[in-house]
Amino acid sequence: MSSEERKVQEVLARYVRATDRRDGKAQGALFTDDAVVRIHARTGPGTYEPVGEPLIGGAAVEYAVEHYMAPHPEGATGHHTTSDHLIEVDGDRARMNAQFIVFRTQAATLPAGTPGAQGTVEPIESGYYDTELRRVDGEWRIVRHDVLMDMPIALPGA
Amino acid sequence: MSSEERKVQEVLARYVRATDRRDGKAQGALFTDDAVVRIHARTGPGTYEPVGEPLIGGAAVEYAVEHYMAPHPEGATGHHTTSDHLIEVDGDRARMNAQFIVFRTQAATLPAGTPGAQGTVEPIESGYYDTELRRVDGEWRIVRHDVLMDMPIALPGA
Amino acid sequence: MSSEERKVQEVLARYVRATDRRDGKAQGALFTDDAVVRIHARTGPGTYEPVGEPLIGGAAVEYAVEHYMAPHPEGATGHHTTSDHLIEVDGDRARMNAQFIVFRTQAATLPAGTPGAQGTVEPIESGYYDTELRRVDGEWRIVRHDVLMDMPIALPGA
Repeated sequence: MSSEERKVQEVLARYVRATDRRDGKAQGALFTDDAVVRIHARTGPGTYEPVGEPLIGGAAVEYAVEHYMAPHPEGATGHHTTSDHLIEVDGDRARMNAQFIVFRTQAATLPAGTPGAQGTVEPIESGYYDTELRRVDGEWRIVRHDVLMDMPIALPGA
Repeated sequence: MSSEERKVQEVLARYVRATDRRDGKAQGALFTDDAVVRIHARTGPGTYEPVGEPLIGGAAVEYAVEHYMAPHPEGATGHHTTSDHLIEVDGDRARMNAQFIVFRTQAATLPAGTPGAQGTVEPIESGYYDTELRRVDGEWRIVRHDVLMDMPIALPGA
Repeated sequence: MSSEERKVQEVLARYVRATDRRDGKAQGALFTDDAVVRIHARTGPGTYEPVGEPLIGGAAVEYAVEHYMAPHPEGATGHHTTSDHLIEVDGDRARMNAQFIVFRTQAATLPAGTPGAQGTVEPIESGYYDTELRRVDGEWRIVRHDVLMDMPIALPGA
């Protein structure tokens, strides 16, 4: 049987797929109604400043993914990848910290003439996710999610 | 004792090492004789088209690695990295979905004169592995392996 | 309860965070007093040559991190990421092999005017960690750590 730590980690695995598909409904369903989601930008070693206002609850996450995340251009997609998870489970509560690197991929419109992948892959964002979860009716859901970006981020429309 | 989910994930960890060493024998040994291996290229959100013909069985995988994968140039090597695995084990069957990013590394031929690594690391391919496994005599082996590339791929000699 | 394999993997998760923070004390605490740490540079398929002298023990690791690792420039930080771990636990002994990719991130000093992250993320180093651990008083600690770099590395001051 899968360990609780693995189940917690798989919440993040579903999170990155939903984000990369811009699937607000799937993304929002990972959060509780009272979840607090905040983005922070690094200002120096161990210091961050908040970016924008917190989102509260899965419905707000769903709305944000569908209205504020830039759609992938034609032929492009992306991967939010996570690694080096630290996970502590204490009964129906869990805390997870993970590194993330975001990659943008772009298919070439003209084949290059040489064998191999026809396009580019480029890392564009990095940081840490710091996340708390609660087990509700046997399902782990996110109650707090802090996105600690390594760099400033300009929000669309801001 | 290691969980079955971890054992399944380690099949992929051996797969990427075998691929990066161009070790067809080690790679082929991870597949059953009737395994079906297919490469697909992304054509749009959630849509793919097949690339080339399927490979059937470990022996065909071994042959393909040894004859069709481009050898690393002098001073170069690579890393197929996987992340954010979703793994379901049901008795002697398992299914795994993982993100992959492929990096190409190239050692510098002339030292740069500044401390640090002397060479380059570049992401060149990305996508998802979608894989089914079966436990045979206590060993997990791949019975279906779909490589979902984010971009078109030109096969050597095609 | 967390599996021993996961606990072993989390030692590496703490290692990469300590390295990226240049936190010698946290880094050194992961090693036993008699730990042997060696850096190697790839010379060809499966072959490596040693780089510098081995470090012996956690105190030497702490000293090296604090005195020999280049500090991050203003606005920069980094991520040592690991993937595709192979872990074997045998009682109070464990062995782990992992791929690593190191990323350097740099915040932009002037905003770009377009939404999204304002800065760059760049892969700069890659290779494998090959590591042995021993469980001492319930804690897994590193007794041997070989850093197998894909490329030559020039040590500061060398």
